[in-house]
Amino acid sequence: MKKVLFATTALIALGSMAAADVRLSGYGRFGLDFNQANDSDYNNGNNPNYNGVSETNITSRLRLQVDMSTETDGGVGFNARFRAQAESRDGSAGGAVFNGARFGVTYGGLIVNVGNIIGAVENAPGLYTTGTRSAGTGIDGMDFMSLPIKGINVDPTSSNFLTPGTTFGWDAYSSTSAGANGVEALYTVGGFTGHVSFSQDNDYGPGVTGEDRLAIMLTYSFGDYYVTGAYQSVDNNPLVYTDVNGRAYDQEDGMYFLAAGADWGQFGAKLAYGSNDVADSWTLEGNMDIGAASNLLAWVNSTDVDGALLDANNESIVGFANAVGQVDGTAFGINYQYDLGGGSTFVAGYAQSAADSNNSQFQAGVYFSF
Amino acid sequence: MKKVLFATTALIALGSMAAADVRLSGYGRFGLDFNQANDSDYNNGNNPNYNGVSETNITSRLRLQVDMSTETDGGVGFNARFRAQAESRDGSAGGAVFNGARFGVTYGGLIVNVGNIIGAVENAPGLYTTGTRSAGTGIDGMDFMSLPIKGINVDPTSSNFLTPGTTFGWDAYSSTSAGANGVEALYTVGGFTGHVSFSQDNDYGPGVTGEDRLAIMLTYSFGDYYVTGAYQSVDNNPLVYTDVNGRAYDQEDGMYFLAAGADWGQFGAKLAYGSNDVADSWTLEGNMDIGAASNLLAWVNSTDVDGALLDANNESIVGFANAVGQVDGTAFGINYQYDLGGGSTFVAGYAQSAADSNNSQFQAGVYFSF
Amino acid sequence: MKKVLFATTALIALGSMAAADVRLSGYGRFGLDFNQANDSDYNNGNNPNYNGVSETNITSRLRLQVDMSTETDGGVGFNARFRAQAESRDGSAGGAVFNGARFGVTYGGLIVNVGNIIGAVENAPGLYTTGTRSAGTGIDGMDFMSLPIKGINVDPTSSNFLTPGTTFGWDAYSSTSAGANGVEALYTVGGFTGHVSFSQDNDYGPGVTGEDRLAIMLTYSFGDYYVTGAYQSVDNNPLVYTDVNGRAYDQEDGMYFLAAGADWGQFGAKLAYGSNDVADSWTLEGNMDIGAASNLLAWVNSTDVDGALLDANNESIVGFANAVGQVDGTAFGINYQYDLGGGSTFVAGYAQSAADSNNSQFQAGVYFSF
Repeated sequence: MKKVLFATTALIALGSMAAADVRLSGYGRFGLDFNQANDSDYNNGNNPNYNGVSETNITSRLRLQVDMSTETDGGVGFNARFRAQAESRDGSAGGAVFNGARFGVTYGGLIVNVGNIIGAVENAPGLYTTGTRSAGTGIDGMDFMSLPIKGINVDPTSSNFLTPGTTFGWDAYSSTSAGANGVEALYTVGGFTGHVSFSQDNDYGPGVTGEDRLAIMLTYSFGDYYVTGAYQSVDNNPLVYTDVNGRAYDQEDGMYFLAAGADWGQFGAKLAYGSNDVADSWTLEGNMDIGAASNLLAWVNSTDVDGALLDANNESIVGFANAVGQVDGTAFGINYQYDLGGGSTFVAGYAQSAADSNNSQFQAGVYFSF
Repeated sequence: MKKVLFATTALIALGSMAAADVRLSGYGRFGLDFNQANDSDYNNGNNPNYNGVSETNITSRLRLQVDMSTETDGGVGFNARFRAQAESRDGSAGGAVFNGARFGVTYGGLIVNVGNIIGAVENAPGLYTTGTRSAGTGIDGMDFMSLPIKGINVDPTSSNFLTPGTTFGWDAYSSTSAGANGVEALYTVGGFTGHVSFSQDNDYGPGVTGEDRLAIMLTYSFGDYYVTGAYQSVDNNPLVYTDVNGRAYDQEDGMYFLAAGADWGQFGAKLAYGSNDVADSWTLEGNMDIGAASNLLAWVNSTDVDGALLDANNESIVGFANAVGQVDGTAFGINYQYDLGGGSTFVAGYAQSAADSNNSQFQAGVYFSF
Repeated sequence: MKKVLFATTALIALGSMAAADVRLSGYGRFGLDFNQANDSDYNNGNNPNYNGVSETNITSRLRLQVDMSTETDGGVGFNARFRAQAESRDGSAGGAVFNGARFGVTYGGLIVNVGNIIGAVENAPGLYTTGTRSAGTGIDGMDFMSLPIKGINVDPTSSNFLTPGTTFGWDAYSSTSAGANGVEALYTVGGFTGHVSFSQDNDYGPGVTGEDRLAIMLTYSFGDYYVTGAYQSVDNNPLVYTDVNGRAYDQEDGMYFLAAGADWGQFGAKLAYGSNDVADSWTLEGNMDIGAASNLLAWVNSTDVDGALLDANNESIVGFANAVGQVDGTAFGINYQYDLGGGSTFVAGYAQSAADSNNSQFQAGVYFSF
């Protein structure tokens, strides 16, 4: 079969240089995931942890990203992006689907994006794990347990107000859906980057809990160091809930995130703090290069969940799924990467959540970009 | 991350020229849409226009088109096309999805297409707005209010026969679904183009209202001028309905479209007429270049809807949604474009429908092709 | 509109040769399908064969395949693949959708795949029709009637145990869904190829009939000849069913396939045998080149279905749809291809199933690769 071979490091420009481009890129990753939280042993109904999923599964993702861009005669750039992505998690695989589009305007140090925006909080340096292929631990990030902030979904039609429907409570680029459909502006000058994002929810009416989100992020980099701060304000309807214990609960309070980090070449470190209405959380992270091709990273997270919203065991937030919610206590993780060359990397990771039981997860596999 | 950069104006042909090709192209467009017909102010249930959608929203589309083609040793061309397209309208965004495929055979001036066909009526010059990036007014076409024909969907299981399920009542290439799944032939010789299209509906049975559609379009271009005529005949089951006023209603009558236009360089004009079972409609359109990069276009449409099918206010067709149906009265629109270079264009548009209230729409934004 | 033209036979490699690639390829095919099993003539309810589908329909497919690959410094290759495919069958067309991803590791003669795997039985030479563009008869394969094995779907919650939900009962690369989400290894040395595949079903619990499938395929090629054998073992839950006649039915028995074939240049032939729990089946196939560009292929299949599982007419397997099930008796088919050049082929095919009535199908059309 005849095929096109696109050399992805070569700039193809014959004759008159093109003003408008289409770029294809992406990555594949696949490996094995051992997750103690899964259990496929039905045992005639005597296994309370039975969820029909084996403890060991394939975890994989294939992402094809399409970037379009052009530039006006006046030097203003226009660009757009979407992705098609296929995933397998917990033994459940699906066909690839496209996400929603992000459109961008660039001029000098200024970027304005529309649609499936990055989000100001999401873009804060130090929020995700530094330099790991998954932006978390292992092959697929392991639910990003290292993050010191997590999403909270308030649903007044539910008996417990807090539901696991939304993993991340801030505007963030979505690889699987339309995303925030918002607007954002980024400006970079010298070591300074500022980022403001806004999304409007149209479902503002009776019995609907749409959020309007306004977020800001500021970062300053100097030498080997950076400091960053981000804040998101949320405008809900209604503005105040009363929880099951009769406590007033004001979702307007929003969330904030602070981090400072350094990269001294062979060594790197980061300290990050996040706070929202139900939890305060610290993450300490360090990594070091081993030889020419290896890197070892470790993180520890300590989260203090507000007791009034805990479950009967005083451990988890009421209504959160264990995997995505914030759990009171200490979690940690280790990530090892070995550069195989040609854009491919061997990755192994281990993480332990703050939950009392079924809290271990291990992954090993390969990541390659194209 | 390594990326492919495809220069889209460059013909890449190294060594032996390829017989089979894949082409990527498309466009992005995004801007703000103010639409008086929307209203997100719930006002404790006292707002009759409340539909949960803000008056001002992002409107956007990202289209990636894939064209495949080859040529036999005998000079017969084969081609195929599909698109992946992501859209946001009225504040509701979605991930991109592919449409159905169109397959083509070309030989000299003859084209035969199969599948997601263009459609003979759809292909008539002068049907859509001339030269605007949206083929209508503004960023997203504003429901193509300038068209002198609109679709009618007859549903005998509904109490009012006419429902808004189908916007356009003729076979047309669909960017979001499988389309007509029909067959068509186009022949061009000199200034003459003829086009015949046919689609068969398989759901022919009890309680089903599938249509078999046969359409023809003829166009003649001479100098700066063109004239065109198109007709679609529809074979329904059953063939005759009785409306709420006891009038027999024969969907066999089909629809026709006539237009004449001219392009004198700096100025252009068009007069178009359309007629179907429930309405007669005229559209007059003119446009002029302003300076080197700008174009201003204006249109006015006058529609005379058959009174027996009007609602209690004698204004709208019974059962049509306001946005897509034909409304008795006069509508007009203005479109302004400024060429920014690099395939990008600034677009602004204003249109006013024939409805008595909530009839204004304004859009401004950017379109760029790649 | 500016467009990218990718010359698909040219290797584009400027400057530093790229380590990571994205390749686009695929094919389009379209034509007419006459199928006696369809009948759209409602006849006021007096037609027992009425299924709302015309006897003659468009059959078409447009496939765009995306292949990504890279190579490590140590010479290990990594690759991934998915496809977007749009189809029309029996007059019903749909937009293109992506399937699930397959990831591969290659080193010397060894291949390890993960995800949407090929499958060891599926990969057996001689299973599908040799050298036809559809891998079966005609444009779309005509349900691959020539295969001596077919899938059986056992559903204990159904009254008849056997349902047509799964066409093929072995792990196979899926163009329309996520596929087996399994693991496989292939090793080739000299004329010998070995292939082992495994897939695990997580839905192992009460009232669920998930299968774990383990399959092996061995092939040896020597001169103009090959011999092959494949076996799949299935581990079901529960392991034994009792059919409507009280017979114990052990789904563990699996299925096997044997074939021997030859290609003497102008002539080719194949004899294949398949057996599963409900049927034994033989297929004999021969083909010959006619002139420089034509090939004519014919096959005959004889299937002996276990009587205890037949319907009241002693003809079809209980619970199988006629189109996909195995029918007791003799079927045959003829396929004609003419190479038009440029990767395009004219294809015509006729097949007759073993069913007593409505058993003829004819297709003619065009296939072109890119």
